[in-house]
Amino acid sequence: MKPRTVFFVSDNTGVTAETFGQSLIVQFDGLEFDKVTVPFVSTVEKARSTVLRINRAAEADGCRPVVFSTLVRDEIRKVLRGSDGLFLDFFDAFLAPLEKEFQMPSAHGTGRSHGIADLKAYTHRIEATNFVLATDDGCDLKSYQQADVILVGVSRSGKTPTCLYLGLQYGVYAANYPLTEDELEDATLPAALMDHRSKLYGLTISPARLFQIRKERRAHGRYASLPQINFELRQAERVFARHGVACIDTTQTSIEGIASTILEATGIERRL
Amino acid sequence: MKPRTVFFVSDNTGVTAETFGQSLIVQFDGLEFDKVTVPFVSTVEKARSTVLRINRAAEADGCRPVVFSTLVRDEIRKVLRGSDGLFLDFFDAFLAPLEKEFQMPSAHGTGRSHGIADLKAYTHRIEATNFVLATDDGCDLKSYQQADVILVGVSRSGKTPTCLYLGLQYGVYAANYPLTEDELEDATLPAALMDHRSKLYGLTISPARLFQIRKERRAHGRYASLPQINFELRQAERVFARHGVACIDTTQTSIEGIASTILEATGIERRL
Repeated sequence: MKPRTVFFVSDNTGVTAETFGQSLIVQFDGLEFDKVTVPFVSTVEKARSTVLRINRAAEADGCRPVVFSTLVRDEIRKVLRGSDGLFLDFFDAFLAPLEKEFQMPSAHGTGRSHGIADLKAYTHRIEATNFVLATDDGCDLKSYQQADVILVGVSRSGKTPTCLYLGLQYGVYAANYPLTEDELEDATLPAALMDHRSKLYGLTISPARLFQIRKERRAHGRYASLPQINFELRQAERVFARHGVACIDTTQTSIEGIASTILEATGIERRL
Repeated sequence: MKPRTVFFVSDNTGVTAETFGQSLIVQFDGLEFDKVTVPFVSTVEKARSTVLRINRAAEADGCRPVVFSTLVRDEIRKVLRGSDGLFLDFFDAFLAPLEKEFQMPSAHGTGRSHGIADLKAYTHRIEATNFVLATDDGCDLKSYQQADVILVGVSRSGKTPTCLYLGLQYGVYAANYPLTEDELEDATLPAALMDHRSKLYGLTISPARLFQIRKERRAHGRYASLPQINFELRQAERVFARHGVACIDTTQTSIEGIASTILEATGIERRL
């Protein structure tokens, strides 16, 4: 089947429009989509040229595109509504009930999500990301005082991407510590971690999946050998059990899923 | 005014529900909100306990909470609809028109966004993030062959967080290179960058904002002095002009905004 073109149209970055459309189209099995993000449609002129683009796609595809839009201003939305696509606007659907609930008109202001408007919150996210980088891979154990959470696990269990996501998305100060050979051998934790035991969260993963990941990284040697991987994972789980460290299996879980599970379990505040 | 409680309720990570609700409430000036994310509401039992939580907030606040939900399954949605909150469900609003358009029922499957279902796409994001880390701050210039884009700028102009966002969110291979003292002095680019000139994108920032950022990091010395900052930024802009490197001012722009602008300008594909 020919892919259907979907447009994510936004007057700002397009992040919300992408999330919006993406979470809907994944609900339709067997269909394929060509995805086009059109950000910064902030003038009537740009809206008109976007309409032309949508109409060209409609003609080329022989079926109408779906347009997921997050357009705050009525006059821009009005132009897009005239395209040959199926027009679904996020604000169209939800602003009215909220205006009624809050008994006030909405601001119709662009660039309010994913912007820098709330400089304090934004700076916090950047600082949290810098904290993740500075403490990555067991660096700077002195900073653990500041950490909201410290992820522990063997190499390539998913610690770093999860920490980065926690920092960038939620402004969470997430450190991570890879268990060393000695610690695995003895199933112990270093003193630096014992002092912050309540902040620890373990990551584990299936041997088969870890084998696959490590092999991609370094095909030969002990690092990507199944006996070594089995040993490391078994010992890491022993460490978690011995010290009462909660732990999540990352084999089937995305970084968003791991992050959300950890926040839910620990009660760490999302700084949205 | 007392803050109003808003709930982001999801049968999965909650990321879509947060984006959904957040982009709406920022449109209401002067109101304050207490934000509560309730992820993984995947059973009727969990739905019932979420309803109790919402009802407790309604009682405590003396006004009804707003519930932004992304619940795929009808029986879960039905339970939530019975809470004392204003219930706004994302799928309620948009699945019907799409089912009609595509002439098929939607799958009502949970965990499809922000999951690991499409392992290839997910692995690509993680690999792109690893690429960002490996090439951060001018490391591993040999890998520039693989880069989709190489951000260039002075220290703390926003290169690293933007690259991480591009990798994590869009699977884009984004490297970054901080201009060195010598390169700034001579307003030149190193040979390693000249070979990939078409991939370069410059970041600049206002002296006042950079001063503020650097002062937080290292209060004393030349690094955070205005004359030095002025010099670096002037020379960096000279480098961009001389070599025809497109450039964006990050002073008023979030990492999402910078990322979106770069993708739009370069035509680099978002790997959604």
